[in-house]
Amino acid sequence: MTYCVGLLLDQGLVMASDSRTNAGVDYISSYSKLHVFQPAPDRLFVIMAAGSLATTREVLDRIRRDLDQAVNPRPSFYQQSPGATLLNVNYLFEAATYLGQVSVAVQNEHGPALRQSGVSGEATFILGGQIAGQPPGLFLIYSQGNAIAATPETPYLQIGESKYGKPALDHIATIGLSLDDGARLCLVSLIGTARSNLSVGPPFEVAVCARDLFSPSYRLKLDANSPELETITQQWRESLRQAFRTLPRFGWELGETQAAPPL
Amino acid sequence: MTYCVGLLLDQGLVMASDSRTNAGVDYISSYSKLHVFQPAPDRLFVIMAAGSLATTREVLDRIRRDLDQAVNPRPSFYQQSPGATLLNVNYLFEAATYLGQVSVAVQNEHGPALRQSGVSGEATFILGGQIAGQPPGLFLIYSQGNAIAATPETPYLQIGESKYGKPALDHIATIGLSLDDGARLCLVSLIGTARSNLSVGPPFEVAVCARDLFSPSYRLKLDANSPELETITQQWRESLRQAFRTLPRFGWELGETQAAPPL
Repeated sequence: MTYCVGLLLDQGLVMASDSRTNAGVDYISSYSKLHVFQPAPDRLFVIMAAGSLATTREVLDRIRRDLDQAVNPRPSFYQQSPGATLLNVNYLFEAATYLGQVSVAVQNEHGPALRQSGVSGEATFILGGQIAGQPPGLFLIYSQGNAIAATPETPYLQIGESKYGKPALDHIATIGLSLDDGARLCLVSLIGTARSNLSVGPPFEVAVCARDLFSPSYRLKLDANSPELETITQQWRESLRQAFRTLPRFGWELGETQAAPPL
Repeated sequence: MTYCVGLLLDQGLVMASDSRTNAGVDYISSYSKLHVFQPAPDRLFVIMAAGSLATTREVLDRIRRDLDQAVNPRPSFYQQSPGATLLNVNYLFEAATYLGQVSVAVQNEHGPALRQSGVSGEATFILGGQIAGQPPGLFLIYSQGNAIAATPETPYLQIGESKYGKPALDHIATIGLSLDDGARLCLVSLIGTARSNLSVGPPFEVAVCARDLFSPSYRLKLDANSPELETITQQWRESLRQAFRTLPRFGWELGETQAAPPL
């Protein structure tokens, strides 16, 4: 499984992912799911991927080939006629459309063989980034190629094993968070998910992309054994327990009520 | 959907459930999912149910009929030959077996018609309780009728929409929690789930069952508008945000590191 979360904040973007990949419980390995593309100084794209590793790998390779061929065209047996690339899209939503089209093309190519094996080649992506002259944006691209975008009301998007990490986001995420707090929140969401689901695990990767910088301001890769990850995990857990201990008492604990009446 | 959680603690049991039932998003209603059975002074059973409302309703009605017929036998066109009841089981695990058998019988009876409509009649249950002379116990009964039990290492069991509320349990639940803290923890888990999934909602019901009492010590039913629920929700959210604000800073915030090296 996988868990990736992106935050669209006033100050820019935070993208975060786990790195665990599994085919069953007995083939677990580690792959980065967070990919940064800076094809020109006026644009930055960060792509996170969940789903079939073969699909997401090929989608990323095709995106890189499209970029390479745009700069350095050579005859290619496999490449289809040249079209959109991350270099020539004019709007971030066009990059999301392009990513969706590449994803659907890869899924269609392998679909018949996969269906015969009863396997799904589906994949979902989060695309965050900015093109100069436009605000940053964050998109979730479904396996069917269509996409939704983060908004001020819902500043986060998730793919993969998203449920365990959602309450923390719902309680804390607002568009006004600082980028640093956004990075902490993504880690908290990842930590909770990894604790509840073995198929999500470190290394955790985080990319912090300040608005108008067109390059990640900070990148983190926290291994399972990293002292930083251990510190934040321990402290979050202790703070949660402390928060829990300060919750109001029930009436019966205060002697205000006898046993509650039968319902 | 539904969310029910049970805790098996040193001091006894806490059982908690939401009350929202939905068939699609346009038919939402409220049903209690927490049912207390005290068929004799030496035994207490609390049953929570998730899944097909028709199945869970009929399972509970059959359990009540079996109890009634054991005390007050009358010819019954529908009832099968008399067998186990909550009155004559000698061990709590036998009550779980009995509940599983009733559930499978109901599902089998309606299964062919449901399958023709492409509908599932599956249901899962949590059974908590105690029979005199034995410790309290907590079981999760799958729709296939088999069951697992809570243990000191994993003192909670969940049915229904269980993922959103699991991290809070994983961070805080231990068998040594007091019953009152257990009730608070179940509410926290319910509150987080209801916030993240519209199909889970109040009234929230909680039954606290102290060891060797054979009757719930306290029962709560918190409506959406109840001041108690509002207070605990607000305070949990504020405490979470406070906990979040006290997390350690990243190296770059402390001026210790420059931008992290590229990965």
